[in-house]
Amino acid sequence: MQSLQEKASAWSGVDQADAFAIDESNLFEKLGLQSFINLSTNFYTRVYDDEEEEWFRSMFANSKKEDAIQNQYEFFVQRMGGPPLYSQRKGHPALIGRHRPFPVTHEAAERWLQHMQNAMDESVDIDQDSKVKMMNFFRHTAFFLVAGNELQNQNQNNQVACKHAATKPAEE
Amino acid sequence: MQSLQEKASAWSGVDQADAFAIDESNLFEKLGLQSFINLSTNFYTRVYDDEEEEWFRSMFANSKKEDAIQNQYEFFVQRMGGPPLYSQRKGHPALIGRHRPFPVTHEAAERWLQHMQNAMDESVDIDQDSKVKMMNFFRHTAFFLVAGNELQNQNQNNQVACKHAATKPAEE
Repeated sequence: MQSLQEKASAWSGVDQADAFAIDESNLFEKLGLQSFINLSTNFYTRVYDDEEEEWFRSMFANSKKEDAIQNQYEFFVQRMGGPPLYSQRKGHPALIGRHRPFPVTHEAAERWLQHMQNAMDESVDIDQDSKVKMMNFFRHTAFFLVAGNELQNQNQNNQVACKHAATKPAEE
Repeated sequence: MQSLQEKASAWSGVDQADAFAIDESNLFEKLGLQSFINLSTNFYTRVYDDEEEEWFRSMFANSKKEDAIQNQYEFFVQRMGGPPLYSQRKGHPALIGRHRPFPVTHEAAERWLQHMQNAMDESVDIDQDSKVKMMNFFRHTAFFLVAGNELQNQNQNNQVACKHAATKPAEE
């Protein structure tokens, strides 16, 4: 079986090394907290105002915008070299698990990325090199979650087989 | 709905702050890579030799012991202040997603923790204070995964409702 990260690379066109080039330097130290707050605020303002793609906006209908912003920038800060703000408040990021309620399709990933690219284009806090690294990370991660979503649907479609699959190997 | 981390705290008896006290200092810098390799090697030697609880050992039957060891210590290193070895090789930890194939029950969490406590007790590389912090992290995380496992079973039991729950709120 193709692994989550293999699918993420194939679908996103971003290989593993480029996706995690965010780890080559400390982007939090370079950019500072406010840059991340601004980025997530811009991003979610676009998402919650998305009138062109109502199906996308509707996925966020039951979350408060302020909460969505905080969850996102705290995760970004933690993942990009800053203090573990997210885990102190909410525990493990558990990206696939926490996205379980949402239909993370290829189309949803592309729409998410489009809003993020637009927010990034407007950011005056983030230098070009960091923007490239971050977008590669986001692009790979978005499709990693599409792969996670498909795995979940597979499990649901094979419900009985799954429940008894005590010795099924972990995703490799 | 009680959140993943609230369930993890209630079931483990470890509150959020104690669980993530591993972030107060850099345990990787303090302990070094070899301590983590030794710990995971000792842990999985116990797991793969677990003849008392065959049901527990059987969960690992389709994974190679060397792979299990590497996956674990690379994740620990990455999470405890070291280089992101795990993500460079495998992508996001996605703890709940990657444990999806396994029945992570309360009993499985307790058995995991018992082996880890025994491995920790034998470790000569890890000081007492770090051992306490790490075990709190492990205990909280084990029950976080039990909570994640229950969420997954819920989803499977409400298969139709779930597939259409496009606007269902994320775990809060």
